[in-house]
Amino acid sequence: MSEGYSLMIGGEQEPVERLRPIFETLAPAADLGWGHVGPSGAGHFVKMVHNGIEYGMMQAFAEGFEIMKGKTELGLDLYQISEIWRYGSVVRSWLLDLAARALAEDATLSTLKGWVADSGEGRWTVAEAIDLDVPAPIITLALQMRFISRQDESFAAKMLAALRNQFGGHAVKREGDS
Amino acid sequence: MSEGYSLMIGGEQEPVERLRPIFETLAPAADLGWGHVGPSGAGHFVKMVHNGIEYGMMQAFAEGFEIMKGKTELGLDLYQISEIWRYGSVVRSWLLDLAARALAEDATLSTLKGWVADSGEGRWTVAEAIDLDVPAPIITLALQMRFISRQDESFAAKMLAALRNQFGGHAVKREGDS
Amino acid sequence: MSEGYSLMIGGEQEPVERLRPIFETLAPAADLGWGHVGPSGAGHFVKMVHNGIEYGMMQAFAEGFEIMKGKTELGLDLYQISEIWRYGSVVRSWLLDLAARALAEDATLSTLKGWVADSGEGRWTVAEAIDLDVPAPIITLALQMRFISRQDESFAAKMLAALRNQFGGHAVKREGDS
Amino acid sequence: MSEGYSLMIGGEQEPVERLRPIFETLAPAADLGWGHVGPSGAGHFVKMVHNGIEYGMMQAFAEGFEIMKGKTELGLDLYQISEIWRYGSVVRSWLLDLAARALAEDATLSTLKGWVADSGEGRWTVAEAIDLDVPAPIITLALQMRFISRQDESFAAKMLAALRNQFGGHAVKREGDS
Repeated sequence: MSEGYSLMIGGEQEPVERLRPIFETLAPAADLGWGHVGPSGAGHFVKMVHNGIEYGMMQAFAEGFEIMKGKTELGLDLYQISEIWRYGSVVRSWLLDLAARALAEDATLSTLKGWVADSGEGRWTVAEAIDLDVPAPIITLALQMRFISRQDESFAAKMLAALRNQFGGHAVKREGDS
Repeated sequence: MSEGYSLMIGGEQEPVERLRPIFETLAPAADLGWGHVGPSGAGHFVKMVHNGIEYGMMQAFAEGFEIMKGKTELGLDLYQISEIWRYGSVVRSWLLDLAARALAEDATLSTLKGWVADSGEGRWTVAEAIDLDVPAPIITLALQMRFISRQDESFAAKMLAALRNQFGGHAVKREGDS
Repeated sequence: MSEGYSLMIGGEQEPVERLRPIFETLAPAADLGWGHVGPSGAGHFVKMVHNGIEYGMMQAFAEGFEIMKGKTELGLDLYQISEIWRYGSVVRSWLLDLAARALAEDATLSTLKGWVADSGEGRWTVAEAIDLDVPAPIITLALQMRFISRQDESFAAKMLAALRNQFGGHAVKREGDS
Repeated sequence: MSEGYSLMIGGEQEPVERLRPIFETLAPAADLGWGHVGPSGAGHFVKMVHNGIEYGMMQAFAEGFEIMKGKTELGLDLYQISEIWRYGSVVRSWLLDLAARALAEDATLSTLKGWVADSGEGRWTVAEAIDLDVPAPIITLALQMRFISRQDESFAAKMLAALRNQFGGHAVKREGDS
């Protein structure tokens, strides 16, 4: 049995009322997890921001797990920790449930590539934030970390290496070096 | 009746076993929401990272709600949206439940000052990340946004205003200007 | 006598050649500080990126000076330091010359408000970077710090304060509190 | 003939005066590019912040050049642009001179790896900023971008890929995939 999904509806009152049976069926419950949030376009706007928040939350978990993985002398079991946090912690959330499920399948995520797509809502959220003069540094950086994940090499990093070499004679690594 | 809270225990096996009845009582359930995660210090480390993640998640929600508030022409009801998202959305979480509760009490948070303390775990998480060479941009920025929230004025921003005035003759605002 | 200014010209070869005397006159020297960089639009693009870089450089200086100002026990003289750095340092630059000039006029910038406008090039640079999937975190954050400088209050920070109050009973500051 | 280098001296008055001939000789000029900035430790502190600013400036240039490189339809010549900017632009600086020199040697930096070391001053600057509650987002991110440049793979990105796969059935890339 499905648990339904959250629906944010924009539009005029009449069609929203006419389609109400559909929304009540798709939502988690007839009176939960859906709503008429505003005029036409408002639903997409709210769903877009939802996804922007999602980017930030995912990146927060990702960073936290990487820090724990990096603390090798403690030998932490990331799957165990994700399960502990699912109950009674401040960070309990559906995304954490999913993290626990993923870590149960592969505790080191060793078979995965760290290549992360984005399907547009993050960049639209950032564009809206800039258009509204609202600072949204976390959401923006979460988007940019996905860009980074998809780069084979960083021209910016090459420029940094070149500059350091110029002013300090700092060694650079050349293509082909180990 | 309390729901218990998440416990991350570090230490040697013997004392952890000896104290097991305490942990099973404080945790959400005897076998849920707590665990022996590693040697002495490991529990505090994991709890620290938990709080770092929490900083990032909170900031993600905060930015998203500010973007929606800024989109005034849509007249969005932030409380309504927080309730919708509690069921069936990707961002459903305990922090969202709390956001909904806070917005139910005061839908515009008009009585609050945007002044945000930090009790140390965020900065320790950042220090550990840097020590481990792990990039943690979201968690770090979430910490720094709290610093910003506590500043009456920003010397950095004054410097920017001074520089723009120097090179472009851009108008500056003086103390006492409206 | 003016030192001329940098010119980045886009367009077809013929008109650029025809207007060459103008460019050679406006530029710092006939053969320095100007160039035909590409087709129509290329000049504006390059100037736009120039300004994006400028945002990042300004913010870097602004943060550095704020850190030195914050280290009160050392009693640092920011004007003196800006002058020292103008000769032989890695950060010597025209922006530093301007910082020194501004600090010479008012060593604590006490008469200025930390309110920083932006005239568009920064946000266009960020939009282009996102469109090109290029991570530009420094330039983006420098833009967002300007947004922050113009906010009387931060709704995001209010949300953080509200969340902390909900989960931890952490004290909040109310409007009217000192 | 050397141009000398910038010197920031901390310590008591007497030894600074005694060593003055050394400072006047090493500095760009007897009365330029060096100074007694405060008590013992102050010189190192100021030099540390100098390097933090340098990190931010370098990253700003690096991002700008990467954006221009990404705009392939304009066919921009990064070396040409760096030379133009050296005269009369707002971003003219010694670091830009070095960028021009590096691009003159290899216009696409094709022989370099984007692997960037850090020798400590950046992380100490960030630690000081956090200790002083001063937001320094640009400097901090510039440091973290160096961490990223040195990672063969990102565990955080793997976690993001795993989460997207869990909630959306989004395809992941496996090790060995092209």
